[in-house]
Amino acid sequence: MNVYTSKEQYLRHIEQIGQVPDGFQIATLGIQFYPEERPVKSPLPMNLVLIQGEHPTEVFGGLFTRNRFPGAPVLIGKKRMEETRIRGILINNKVSNVGAPHGVEDAEEILDSLAAHAGGKGEEYIPASTGIIGWRLPKNEILKALPELVRRLGRSTCADAARAIMTTDAYPKVARRPLGRGHLVGFAKGAGMIEPNLATMLVFLLTDVQLDRGILRDTLRKVVETTFNCISVDGDQSTSDTVLFLSSGVRETVSSREMERALLEVSEELAEHIVRNGEGTSHVIRLQVSSAPDFETARELGKAVVNSPLVKTAIYGNDPNVGRIVAALGDYVGNQDLPLDPHRWVIRIGGIEIFSKGRFMLDRGKEESLASYLKDASMDPKEKSYPLHDRVVDIQVEIGSGTAEATVLGSDLSYEYVRENADYRS
Amino acid sequence: MNVYTSKEQYLRHIEQIGQVPDGFQIATLGIQFYPEERPVKSPLPMNLVLIQGEHPTEVFGGLFTRNRFPGAPVLIGKKRMEETRIRGILINNKVSNVGAPHGVEDAEEILDSLAAHAGGKGEEYIPASTGIIGWRLPKNEILKALPELVRRLGRSTCADAARAIMTTDAYPKVARRPLGRGHLVGFAKGAGMIEPNLATMLVFLLTDVQLDRGILRDTLRKVVETTFNCISVDGDQSTSDTVLFLSSGVRETVSSREMERALLEVSEELAEHIVRNGEGTSHVIRLQVSSAPDFETARELGKAVVNSPLVKTAIYGNDPNVGRIVAALGDYVGNQDLPLDPHRWVIRIGGIEIFSKGRFMLDRGKEESLASYLKDASMDPKEKSYPLHDRVVDIQVEIGSGTAEATVLGSDLSYEYVRENADYRS
Repeated sequence: MNVYTSKEQYLRHIEQIGQVPDGFQIATLGIQFYPEERPVKSPLPMNLVLIQGEHPTEVFGGLFTRNRFPGAPVLIGKKRMEETRIRGILINNKVSNVGAPHGVEDAEEILDSLAAHAGGKGEEYIPASTGIIGWRLPKNEILKALPELVRRLGRSTCADAARAIMTTDAYPKVARRPLGRGHLVGFAKGAGMIEPNLATMLVFLLTDVQLDRGILRDTLRKVVETTFNCISVDGDQSTSDTVLFLSSGVRETVSSREMERALLEVSEELAEHIVRNGEGTSHVIRLQVSSAPDFETARELGKAVVNSPLVKTAIYGNDPNVGRIVAALGDYVGNQDLPLDPHRWVIRIGGIEIFSKGRFMLDRGKEESLASYLKDASMDPKEKSYPLHDRVVDIQVEIGSGTAEATVLGSDLSYEYVRENADYRS
Repeated sequence: MNVYTSKEQYLRHIEQIGQVPDGFQIATLGIQFYPEERPVKSPLPMNLVLIQGEHPTEVFGGLFTRNRFPGAPVLIGKKRMEETRIRGILINNKVSNVGAPHGVEDAEEILDSLAAHAGGKGEEYIPASTGIIGWRLPKNEILKALPELVRRLGRSTCADAARAIMTTDAYPKVARRPLGRGHLVGFAKGAGMIEPNLATMLVFLLTDVQLDRGILRDTLRKVVETTFNCISVDGDQSTSDTVLFLSSGVRETVSSREMERALLEVSEELAEHIVRNGEGTSHVIRLQVSSAPDFETARELGKAVVNSPLVKTAIYGNDPNVGRIVAALGDYVGNQDLPLDPHRWVIRIGGIEIFSKGRFMLDRGKEESLASYLKDASMDPKEKSYPLHDRVVDIQVEIGSGTAEATVLGSDLSYEYVRENADYRS
């Protein structure tokens, strides 16, 4: 991640890297609506984003939330993965279309109408929504806006799209890597909770490089496991989390290794942005679990630590509270009854060894160094309109029972998190 | 639970119910110490509590944390369960004796010395500690205090003991039920986090009624499953959680059914106190999961909801945010890949149906009723020196896939929780 000195500098940067890869066009449009479900004094704003291939593409893939109560767009998106080709993606914020009456029918009617204006069939478009749970999409307002949205194709960049899909995100998130003679560009909205609702993560990845559909999907699955599936802001998995990846195929192909490296770098960067810009985040925690029996165990141990409210509040308070890290690990290992022995664990914060051979290695000097290390890595959660720095709290846990490792990104638990998530309707 | 109008009234009440069952004596003593691990300006206070049988008893049982990194007292306590008889329990607060060098040796030396003063062998005493992780017990100060502690036997009540073992608990917790010609009395310290450390729960249950050791242990295991194992303040399981149950056997026996009922009522009452008096708790959430395939699934679903930071913050903000409850259930069911269908779920808050047939059943009237219901159940987390009321936020979840049920108690997530847990050393 780069470092920026002002919001303006950051926005200039993402404008530069946000150019749309060849073979795609993007449109954005703001609309307004009155929700059926609640009287409001003035209409609510909603942004629409259309990503459209200049030609339909057979090279696309997607991964979706495992939440058993997914939104209508996820239900439709999963079906779309079986289609031969895809022409585009229609995104809206403000209403997530989860648990609303006629959610699937409404979304399909909108996509059919979009196809009538933009070409192809409704089945060739993938929907993605984020926002309030339980409300219906403002179908009529969206239908009315579609012709204008289609007319605007080509006028917006990925940076514009990243801005349009923001909810409680404090800054737009874009990442780009060169890839052969083309590029890979990704943009995302983050795991900040939104309006009354959920920490939805939406990620869109576009490349102009020609790829095989099977390779694109396999690589996406592999890369998501170690990036977007290794972050956790509050341990809750949204009803709408979605990662979509499209190739227009207008530039010549690259090796699958090159493709994987670019995808990994773009995904890592977006994943870190999502955590850094999470609601109320004042520290990013990067927890590396090594010498574990397998990757899954390593990742779950890491998540057990970064999801522990006791660890999260301690880090928020710049308190190097080692006992809580060991206790969170011990809690997970005990509950899962894993054959792991705490006497083999070695734990370091910021490179400083704090636990080994079943004992804490603390003294006053270490505690002071650790406290100032934590302080140095903190950010003011109220001033986050751009990434202020790229510092993280590095915690390393050696398990001493294998060769697998995983790196998990998490955030601390601040007053601001509670405020943002408690004060919606009270 | 009863309701009290002042702290004084509550303290008078627990003094009344805190009489020690026949056949036991209790002593409490405050000492002071300078920790080896950190320079402090003035000595730190520690309380010692000794529970002593007038005669050794063969009728005792205990359950301990499953945390894989348990404290020395838990390691010793588990071994003690194999002993033929037990004479007493020695409890201290302030230092948990977890992960400290020579923790087991220190505790055993202290118990040997206790036995020399109070009778029997060191193996006939069970240690229990709560407090800071990583520090050594102030062995010399404790050894020096033991003769005076033993001299004081008989001068303290269970209410005194409950007060002495408090850490961040805002009020002492005692419960009592008549049992045949005798009584069952329990006292506990709560799952508030302590000093830099953990949400340790210590529970001590004493009865004068004669019981069979096997029945006592089986009943304890059964009752703990539905009471102390069904509460969750922050989802973290401490390195020191302990429940101990001793019978002096000086009153005639009762049926195992009577015993179980008394144990269940005392345990339920203490469990609710622990949640209500948890750090920063402003709402107690009582989540009943019914028509589930089995008890374990019902309990884990309930915990998934009460441990969700999104649900907890919404309830703190008196926001009846139904979407977050459904999403937390869907997250757990999806991650565990359970064969449960959200279209069969029915969810009620305070008796008001808010979700059924896969859809939210909300309107403005319901939302207003729910918001005032939540407000009514709230407590000021800064004023908790006695149980202000016994109101809870009742959430009922029907799963529609079986006949098992579980009731889980949890708490909301408040500013005060973050403050208490963040600000220790910063």
